Amino acid sequence: MPEFRKDPVTGQWVIVSTERAKRPSDFARAPVATKKLGICPFCPGNESLTMNEVLAFRSSGAPNHPGWTTRVVPNRFPVLCIDGDFGRQPEGLYDRMNGLGAHEVIIDCPEHVTSLAETSETNVANVFWAFRERMEDLKKDPRLIYTLLFKNHGQAAGASLEHSHCQLISMPVMPARVKEELEGAKRYFASHGRCVFCDIIRQERREEIRVVAEDESLIVIAPYASRSPFEMWILPRNHGTHFERAAPEILQALARTLRVLLTKIDRALEKPAYNFLLHNGGMKDTEMPHYHWHLEIIPRLVRLAGFEWGTNVCINPTTPEDAAKVLREFPL
Amino acid sequence: MPEFRKDPVTGQWVIVSTERAKRPSDFARAPVATKKLGICPFCPGNESLTMNEVLAFRSSGAPNHPGWTTRVVPNRFPVLCIDGDFGRQPEGLYDRMNGLGAHEVIIDCPEHVTSLAETSETNVANVFWAFRERMEDLKKDPRLIYTLLFKNHGQAAGASLEHSHCQLISMPVMPARVKEELEGAKRYFASHGRCVFCDIIRQERREEIRVVAEDESLIVIAPYASRSPFEMWILPRNHGTHFERAAPEILQALARTLRVLLTKIDRALEKPAYNFLLHNGGMKDTEMPHYHWHLEIIPRLVRLAGFEWGTNVCINPTTPEDAAKVLREFPL
Repeated sequence: MPEFRKDPVTGQWVIVSTERAKRPSDFARAPVATKKLGICPFCPGNESLTMNEVLAFRSSGAPNHPGWTTRVVPNRFPVLCIDGDFGRQPEGLYDRMNGLGAHEVIIDCPEHVTSLAETSETNVANVFWAFRERMEDLKKDPRLIYTLLFKNHGQAAGASLEHSHCQLISMPVMPARVKEELEGAKRYFASHGRCVFCDIIRQERREEIRVVAEDESLIVIAPYASRSPFEMWILPRNHGTHFERAAPEILQALARTLRVLLTKIDRALEKPAYNFLLHNGGMKDTEMPHYHWHLEIIPRLVRLAGFEWGTNVCINPTTPEDAAKVLREFPL
Repeated sequence: MPEFRKDPVTGQWVIVSTERAKRPSDFARAPVATKKLGICPFCPGNESLTMNEVLAFRSSGAPNHPGWTTRVVPNRFPVLCIDGDFGRQPEGLYDRMNGLGAHEVIIDCPEHVTSLAETSETNVANVFWAFRERMEDLKKDPRLIYTLLFKNHGQAAGASLEHSHCQLISMPVMPARVKEELEGAKRYFASHGRCVFCDIIRQERREEIRVVAEDESLIVIAPYASRSPFEMWILPRNHGTHFERAAPEILQALARTLRVLLTKIDRALEKPAYNFLLHNGGMKDTEMPHYHWHLEIIPRLVRLAGFEWGTNVCINPTTPEDAAKVLREFPL
């Protein structure tokens, strides 16, 4: 059973999950190297190589057989497990609880493509629809309070399988980074009476220099304090706390915009590794006037070194103004 | 001029430092790849390839000539610059200031070795003595409030030059990670009346399972909530806020212990990339009953993926108990 352990100094949780490798020597080096398998477990026809699906959009076929367009399965090497209780207890001055949660894989499309940018807009939209359905199901579990949708693309971004896929991890604790965002947004609202993200959108639309793209429902910006070169945030122009309550046309716009952006960074930056992740309101939260969901895209172009580990201060060699200009003007 | 930019949501600072690469395309890929130069700028005889030294321990020779054993020079591509004023100002709702600070390189030893573990104990101690002297000098600058000593070893840990060296970065702001530690330690002291690090040392000495090594002045532990496999903290057994106020024999013990640990991880983990960094009280802080300086060693064995970026929750596949046992029992 994996476990959550709390750092007694900072109060931050760490997941100790040894299920993925058994002996210390096993993970001495690069445990997340991309495996070149003869058989891809995510391709149609190989459904028996994954866990049984928890969701699939399909035009034909029985569960766990070909005919699907997007398929969701529990991760075979989960960092958190759905069975069991909290088991929260002290160990002297330390604090631990069982590694309770869900860890699922969303197989983006049946074709063995290595990038989400190579799939159709419909497939990209299906990924978001699948996440949304899984979210509604996981919300019924009273133990889970936060679910992160994320993608690891390329080895430098932590991908371990080639066939394009996303992941979701659902947790019984609020993760540190999200808590910081929620608390920061709350502070801003307390002093200004407005959502900080809505204010960011207003200022960026006025100044234009950090805007990468915009349509009637979404805006893409290179954030003012970008932590890495070419970091981008996609935000709905109208305020909303929860991704899963957004209108269907916003999901469709998100799929279209994301696909264009991923194609642009593939071409402008020579197919970089990247992560994207959805920052969303908590599963048990109601609509909040201060929190605004958004998708963050982080091309993994720089390595985190000792300074970043020791300070949590990122060093970014590219201004977001330069990054936005390059991406905005890049021809497709 | 580099600049500090504050994230308007979380309040965290980012350094935007474009001095290191000029065009967006320059840093599109791996800007910190280890360069194989024909001539090593850190070897004796090549002093003219670095900036003029700000400190050197030498048995002979004039400044910026051979004869030194440890040498400190300003970084040729500094992320922060010492000249100028704060220039703190708003940009609409954003907050920025000039990238004021110091960024120096400590060349560990004259020999062209690639690992600190290959130098003598005296050389390792000299690195700490050099940092201490530079710290006393930088403390005179009223603008600077925190200095981090760190090492990047190996390409995966962000090293860009082979010849063994450490770095220091001195800043006019308190970095997020250190602030979290200071605030967490203060909270613990407020409710317990004791230093959390002293309590950790007491519990670890009693339980022994996470102790890697110990002598009369220092203890080495694999921390309870280790963020990465084989993370280690070296702590002075007696309370002290500032590294630079520790007794000379503690510096000597630190050099001896660090050299043994680096040799052990080199052999046990097949020469991994690693970072180490010194967490210390602030430059303008007096002795504090709640904060205890320590050195953190982070072997870079796992990649940070989308989940970690989105949550600041680390996933560690090795228990600290296993890591401590392996390192404690590894024969030298």
